[in-house]
Amino acid sequence: MTTQKEKLPIGMFDSGVGGMTVLKALRQRTPCEDVIYLGDTARLPYGTKSPQTISRYAVQCAAELVRRGIKLLVVACNTASAVALAPLREAYPDIPVIGVVEPGARAACNATQNGTIAVIATESTIAGGAYQHAIHAIAPEARIIGHPCPLFVSLAEEGWLDGDIPEAVAARYLSPIFNPASGTGNPVVPDTLVLGCTHFPLLAPAIRNVVNSSTVIVDSAATTADTVHEELIRLNLQRPKNGCGTVEYLTTDDAARFARTGTRFLGTPITEREVELVDL
Amino acid sequence: MTTQKEKLPIGMFDSGVGGMTVLKALRQRTPCEDVIYLGDTARLPYGTKSPQTISRYAVQCAAELVRRGIKLLVVACNTASAVALAPLREAYPDIPVIGVVEPGARAACNATQNGTIAVIATESTIAGGAYQHAIHAIAPEARIIGHPCPLFVSLAEEGWLDGDIPEAVAARYLSPIFNPASGTGNPVVPDTLVLGCTHFPLLAPAIRNVVNSSTVIVDSAATTADTVHEELIRLNLQRPKNGCGTVEYLTTDDAARFARTGTRFLGTPITEREVELVDL
Repeated sequence: MTTQKEKLPIGMFDSGVGGMTVLKALRQRTPCEDVIYLGDTARLPYGTKSPQTISRYAVQCAAELVRRGIKLLVVACNTASAVALAPLREAYPDIPVIGVVEPGARAACNATQNGTIAVIATESTIAGGAYQHAIHAIAPEARIIGHPCPLFVSLAEEGWLDGDIPEAVAARYLSPIFNPASGTGNPVVPDTLVLGCTHFPLLAPAIRNVVNSSTVIVDSAATTADTVHEELIRLNLQRPKNGCGTVEYLTTDDAARFARTGTRFLGTPITEREVELVDL
Repeated sequence: MTTQKEKLPIGMFDSGVGGMTVLKALRQRTPCEDVIYLGDTARLPYGTKSPQTISRYAVQCAAELVRRGIKLLVVACNTASAVALAPLREAYPDIPVIGVVEPGARAACNATQNGTIAVIATESTIAGGAYQHAIHAIAPEARIIGHPCPLFVSLAEEGWLDGDIPEAVAARYLSPIFNPASGTGNPVVPDTLVLGCTHFPLLAPAIRNVVNSSTVIVDSAATTADTVHEELIRLNLQRPKNGCGTVEYLTTDDAARFARTGTRFLGTPITEREVELVDL
């Protein structure tokens, strides 16, 4: 039976295509694994919804993936990772569940030298305090500056990734944190910035222009892929290394749009024919 | 029985708070009427969803309002007006249903001198061609330039309504239409611009900077309020003019956020206590 289980795919869901930055990192880290990616595009964005609603949607996404058979579940969505891990683990106690918050928090704690960490994310993730809690669980003395940056999501989806507009938006959000005026009562400038939303890695070049050259930018997609890899080894769930794994795509609305915007996030082409429409 | 019916409120729904630009215009146009406003915030935005999903959600919103008793239904959402009027009229044949597309299209046809009309809206509204069809039904010879402007929605919700960023976004979207380079094959510059999304009136100052000083900007909120007023008179459904009407607010998620962003769109304060949470 163990042999069967290790051959199962990894299940992964997000509210949309943003989680494909995690999928991309995972494909690079564990290329032999099969993956089923579900984007709940009919109900995106999760970032503005209540914790109760987000948890309900997350469990519905997981149910669809579990029904198809998976060996491990990746919550490739910061908003859902922030509020829905406990309900997911309760609903599926036999399946390891990995979110994107804890790996990002751990990487930030490892990176910071001055103990001051900035976290940018959606409004809901910041308000829920998930990164703040996860960082303080590892480094109780850390100073954390959280700031919601919802326009980064729209810029990433529109594909406006460089040039004046993303740089102006990044400056408006981040300058008060990284270039504070004297006497603002924020004396320590963070040396580490967590991109706490899966959309944000696409805007890393514009963000890099605003922060200091020495600032460490933590991309939680990459750190989550590392964690998944470690867990597969620890649980003896690695797929035998014979060739390249496959990816199945599921969406809850508009396969054409999913393929088009997903291609931008994944960096490799997805065709509409590869995308299956599901009703949750 | 007729006396009873005219005392009923007007029902109005949108995917979120954007429709409050229509509510604001309606309160100015018909201040004695009671209104129930439903914002389906748990499932916003509609603009990226399929016509089938949008129609299903629209009928669910209408059902909640009809259950409470309304005399007329305003679809205060361009996306839903574009695709869901027919299913709504089929579901509720006894209730007059007014969308925001047809009034805006009619106002644009009245305004244009050179027969060239630009329409900006969400991706779904433009792709669905609702404004194009509505304008051509009135003015078959009109030239129409449709362009999706999704970032305007995010800017309006973030409250970034003036300054460099909204102006740069407006210029990036609209300059190719209103200041075309010579030889682009777009010789006639539109003299009329339809704001085909309820969020866009908030950005009218930034938009005004990019278009020509003589361009007529058609705000479909105001034209829809005029149409509702005319229909109430035509159907003998006006409420007796004794005092100011009331507004009830319903939302499908997060009353606090609804009150906060709604206040920005309505221009007058809404408190969390006034907002009722409903499950559709």
